Order: sequence, then structure tokens, then C-alpha cells
Amino acid sequence: MSYEARRNQLYQLMVEERIRLVMFEHTEGRQDSAIRWMTGHPGDGLLFLGFDRQGKGYSLLVPWDINIALIHAEVDSLISYTEFERQPLKAIQGAAAYFSIPFGSKVEIPPVTPYPLFLHYVEALTDFEVLCRDGGLHREVEFFRAVKDPAEIAIYQTLSAITNDLMDVLEQRIRSGELNTEEAVALFIEAECRKRGCEGTGFETLAAGPQRSFGIHPFPAYTSGDFATAGLSILDFGLKYAGYTSDVTLTFVRPPLSRAQEKMLTLTERAYRLALAMIGEGVATKTIAAAVGAFFNNAKKSMPHALGHGIGLEAHESPALSNRTDNSWVLKPGMIFTLEPGLYDPTHGGCRLENDILLTPKGFEVLTNARIIRL
Amino acid sequence: MSYEARRNQLYQLMVEERIRLVMFEHTEGRQDSAIRWMTGHPGDGLLFLGFDRQGKGYSLLVPWDINIALIHAEVDSLISYTEFERQPLKAIQGAAAYFSIPFGSKVEIPPVTPYPLFLHYVEALTDFEVLCRDGGLHREVEFFRAVKDPAEIAIYQTLSAITNDLMDVLEQRIRSGELNTEEAVALFIEAECRKRGCEGTGFETLAAGPQRSFGIHPFPAYTSGDFATAGLSILDFGLKYAGYTSDVTLTFVRPPLSRAQEKMLTLTERAYRLALAMIGEGVATKTIAAAVGAFFNNAKKSMPHALGHGIGLEAHESPALSNRTDNSWVLKPGMIFTLEPGLYDPTHGGCRLENDILLTPKGFEVLTNARIIRL
Repeated sequence: MSYEARRNQLYQLMVEERIRLVMFEHTEGRQDSAIRWMTGHPGDGLLFLGFDRQGKGYSLLVPWDINIALIHAEVDSLISYTEFERQPLKAIQGAAAYFSIPFGSKVEIPPVTPYPLFLHYVEALTDFEVLCRDGGLHREVEFFRAVKDPAEIAIYQTLSAITNDLMDVLEQRIRSGELNTEEAVALFIEAECRKRGCEGTGFETLAAGPQRSFGIHPFPAYTSGDFATAGLSILDFGLKYAGYTSDVTLTFVRPPLSRAQEKMLTLTERAYRLALAMIGEGVATKTIAAAVGAFFNNAKKSMPHALGHGIGLEAHESPALSNRTDNSWVLKPGMIFTLEPGLYDPTHGGCRLENDILLTPKGFEVLTNARIIRL
Repeated sequence: MSYEARRNQLYQLMVEERIRLVMFEHTEGRQDSAIRWMTGHPGDGLLFLGFDRQGKGYSLLVPWDINIALIHAEVDSLISYTEFERQPLKAIQGAAAYFSIPFGSKVEIPPVTPYPLFLHYVEALTDFEVLCRDGGLHREVEFFRAVKDPAEIAIYQTLSAITNDLMDVLEQRIRSGELNTEEAVALFIEAECRKRGCEGTGFETLAAGPQRSFGIHPFPAYTSGDFATAGLSILDFGLKYAGYTSDVTLTFVRPPLSRAQEKMLTLTERAYRLALAMIGEGVATKTIAAAVGAFFNNAKKSMPHALGHGIGLEAHESPALSNRTDNSWVLKPGMIFTLEPGLYDPTHGGCRLENDILLTPKGFEVLTNARIIRL
């Protein structure tokens, strides 16, 4: 789907809701890759969607770096952020003037706008009705983005193949002892993913040897310490290709293991299979997450994080797969998300198994081939 | 200064303002390293500051990963975020109960709280007065953090020495031709900084050869393309040591150069010296930034970004050094900040020179030794 087609979905909703101007913001404090999704622009900036004099949808990008935008952005118009002194309030006032929106029009700003800043927007836009809503147009974009279109699914097929290939190479090199520290593994991924055509990694690689694998997210992310020595080692990484991120976790297991460690591994693998068996169109993700939670609790364990999450231009996107009471996501064909059950123990270390799943009209496809690897 | 001493500064302000409970949040969407600054905890979580029954300041950390917190956090009390279903509203209700704060008390939440979420806080805390302010306690923490204490300055002395040493090695290896792609340079930094005792890099290294140096932040951050070939190449990186980040930019210059490129280099170096000459206690950073802006404008150029920024636990902290009208920062001894004038041109490429400066009671110290390197 073209960037323009994506924006057209929004214009339609804007007409229905009589919203004349909507702003998206991707800046240091509030990053929203919806701008990249709707324009291709990968950098900081503000995106305004409105209508031209003929009532046709029209897009105005206000990038921080105009030179990057000139190369990457597919939009109707570009104005450098410096024209507005790099101030969002001046930019939105400028956009309202640019689009000549009438007195009393509805203008929607991002729902992540801080409360004190929201008050400044209201003040700066006294002629208009300022909307800042959880369930507004930005949420609709989140819904659109959660269901990947054919172009995005094609990217994920390529990306998954690269990720799988790299996991095979990692297994070989770790088995051979060539990669034997957290740092060696992480830097190998950085170098190899680029050789295979990726933009880079999708997030900071987490590599934790047996002494540190008890952390959900080890700190620091990787060190010069041993990896894949006796016990449980976790490797959680993602590759970024054409903007999109994969996200997988391997656990490397080297004997001797304690009974507690064996039990953690067995439970994690069973939880993963349980989750996989429940996946299907129309299933509430909360139901799956709750089932996995109950399964662990039944074994007197608990999982201290969500079961999974959507992936896309961000490493964490919708849908959430958590048993939080406020999670109302339901699986739909086209969604791509992780399943990542794990258990963590200060004494025995941790294990996690994470793969990327594509829901299809007929069922699902496990895109990646992460596994628990016994050395 | 100890973590407790840092919190004590806050308790004192809380007493003065009659605030009974204040919340800090470091989560995926809203990251605030104030929690690390006040407790040492480097991971996600919520921090609540209140008072015990004797009226003594008391800290409660609600970490996402309890195992990481048990190792790193120095606080009075810890409750796992899972106890509150990983929901901030439940956590703050729990904290209000934990501290037994009386009906009608003032409770302050982070000023970055989104407007729709702010409404939920107000609803969840009907018995209390919810504050969400630009100029509140969180801003006071920002002021405190902008002035580094002796322990932090000592960290920066070590970190700057490591950064300077690595820059010298980089210059050698780039001169010798051993490092000749963006990726080789970036991955060399990743590996070498860890050998020298750093946690890692402070942000994604930006390495842009002559074809891409026109971008303030090149996209992607680094590629397999050539680095330091004829023209202007920019290398912007930071190292992270004991939580703190350095931030330097080198420009590598290889002839032949166009006159336009020579002019950009000369102007950038002169802008840097101009800025340095203006630094001093009590000087408004806006004044310095405006002078540099005027200097460039006088030469019919413009700088599309701020002149500099504070550094610390984050790569970008206060004080801002920008000529935005809303910038009211004034330099004080103990502040550590960057100066980073630069010029960018789609045809000729870009150049930037960035060093880290410590303001001292007697003047200032240029901590780092970044430079324009002519090959």
C-alpha cells in the first residue's frame, strides 16, 4: 500500500468526524513512527493532515532535517521545522493558517501530549476546538498499523529469512566456541545483519550469560562476560530491514543443569506451545496471556512480563498480548506479533523463547525459528 | 553525593510545598532517568517519594524487574510492579495507601503525563489533589541534575579520558586506512569502549561518509559505505561510563575540497571558538546560541539545530543551548554540556565540531578533544 493510500484512510475518518487538521509528532521526547508509516520519512518532525481548497486530503510534513526529508518523504508539501523555530505550538499555528481552516474547526493533537503542554495548545489555538483523545485518530492509525498490508508482510518474509539464517550461524559459532562472550555475540550480530542488507538491529541486543540471565532485560545489555557456559544464557535480538523489526529470543543451555533449571525450560517450552495452540482469528489476546499466566501459576511460577507484542516499524507495537485488564486486543489476519514466555530466577538464571507469528486468513505462520539450544 | 542525599533535597522541597507524595516514571513510553539518579536503579519502574510516620522522607521503588532492582537500587522499600498488575494507576493508588497520606493531600505526577492519562489519574485519586505541572518538583530535579556534583564530575574526568584516548586511536586507524567504512568505525567504537570499561555507547553512533554527511542525523546511522574518502565525513558518538554519557563529533576531511567545503569548515571552527569565548557563569545560553546563529546568518548560512545541550545520565539533558524563545537556562559551575556548531549542504556534505565542556567556579574546562581532522 502506498503512503498516500495509508493517508487516505485517515482523511476518510477525518471527514466522518469533521476533523479539519490532525497532527502527528515524532520528536525526541515523543516518538511516533506513524509519520514514517504514512510518509516514509524516518527522522524527527511533525506531520499535518488536512484538506486542500477542493476538499481533497493534503499532507504537510515539517521535518527537523529537511535534507533527509527531501530524500525519503513522500508528501504533498514540506516546510522545514526551523521555519517555526522548532516549536510545535508555532508549527501547528502555522499549519492551521496554511490549510486556512475555518474558525471553530476541530484540530486533533497526539494523545501522548503532556497535560501542561496540552494547555498551551488550547491557548495557542483559541479559534479552534482542540481534541486530545485516547480513542481518536491516532488510535485508528494504531489499529491500521497493527494489521500489516501485503507490502509489509513481504518485508517480514525477507526479514524473517535473514533472522533465521543469522540464528543458524550464531548457533554454529557458539557451538564451536568461536563466540564465547556476550559482547562477541552482540557485535557479531551488528556486523552480520548489515552484511545481509539490514539497516541495523531493531533494538539493543540483550545477551546474558548464566550469571546474568535472571534479568528480564539484563543490565548492561551485554558485557565482556562469558556467554553460553554452564547453565542458562539468553540472547534476545531483532534485526531491522526496510524499517521493520524482527524480535527473537534464544536460550542456550549447557549442562550440568539443576533440576530447577530443567523445570524452567520444560515449563517455558510448554507455555510456548500452549500459547501457539490458542492463536486464531477473533481470539482476545488477553485470553491467551491469562491462560499462560495460569499455567505458570499452577506450577508455582510467575512470568513478570507480558506474553508478547506486535512488531513493525517499532520493536513494540500493538497488539499487546498481556493479561492486563485494560487490554482489549483481538487477533486479526495480518497481525504480526511475538510470543515470548519466560521464567527468571536470581539463583538459577532465566530462560525465554520468543518467535514472531503472522496471523493468516487460514491460521498462522511462525515466521522465525528461535529455539532453546542445548549445547 | 549519595542517592539518599539527592532524595533529601526533594523531601525538603516537598515539605515546603506541602506535597505528600510524588511519582517519577521510567517506562517504555516515558523515560526519566531521574529514577536512576535518585536510586541507582537502571531499569524501568516507578519511584514514589513520601514520608514515614515520623515525618521522615521515605522512598518506595516499584520496579518492572525486581531482580535487577535488588542488585542496583538503594531505596527504603521495594514492591514489584507486578503487584500492581503493571498499571501506573493501581501503583499510585497503592502508594497512596502505603504511605497513608491523608485526605486532600497534594500528589504530584510527572509533567510528561499525557492529557488523557492525566484525567484517569484525577479519577483514580479523587481523595487527593493531583498536580501535573511544568514548574513542579520534576523541574526541580532537572535543575539539580543540570549541576553535576563532585562524584559526577569525577566520572566525567574518567569518561573524557577514555573518550579522548579512543578518538586518538580512531584517528590513527582512519589515517592508516584500517577503518575505511562507516560500519567499521562504528563497530570498532562498540568493541573498544567496552574494553576500556564503558557500559557501551551512549547513543547510536552516527557515522556519515562524504555522500551522506549532509544529514544532521544520517539515516541509517551507519552503513557499509565508505568513510573518510574525499570530502567531509562526520563521526558523532558518545561513550557511557557508570551511567554517564560523553558526546563528541569529529569531522574528517580529505582533499580535494571545494571552496564551499573549505568555507563551511572555517565557519564551523570560528563559530565554535566564538561560542567558547562567550562561556561563563551567569551567561544565558540563549545569548550564546543567538550569537552563533547571527554569525552563521551573517555568512549567509544557517544552523538547523541547537548549539548544544547538557549531558549526564541521558545523552540530551538540561541545560539547553538554543536560541528558542522559551529557553531560559543560565550557565552555572558544575554544568557539563556540549558545544556543537555545524553546517550541512545537500551538495557539499556537512561538518560539525562537538566537545563537552565543564563550567568551573573559575572558568571552564574543555573535557574532550574532538577536532576537525585533515587527512
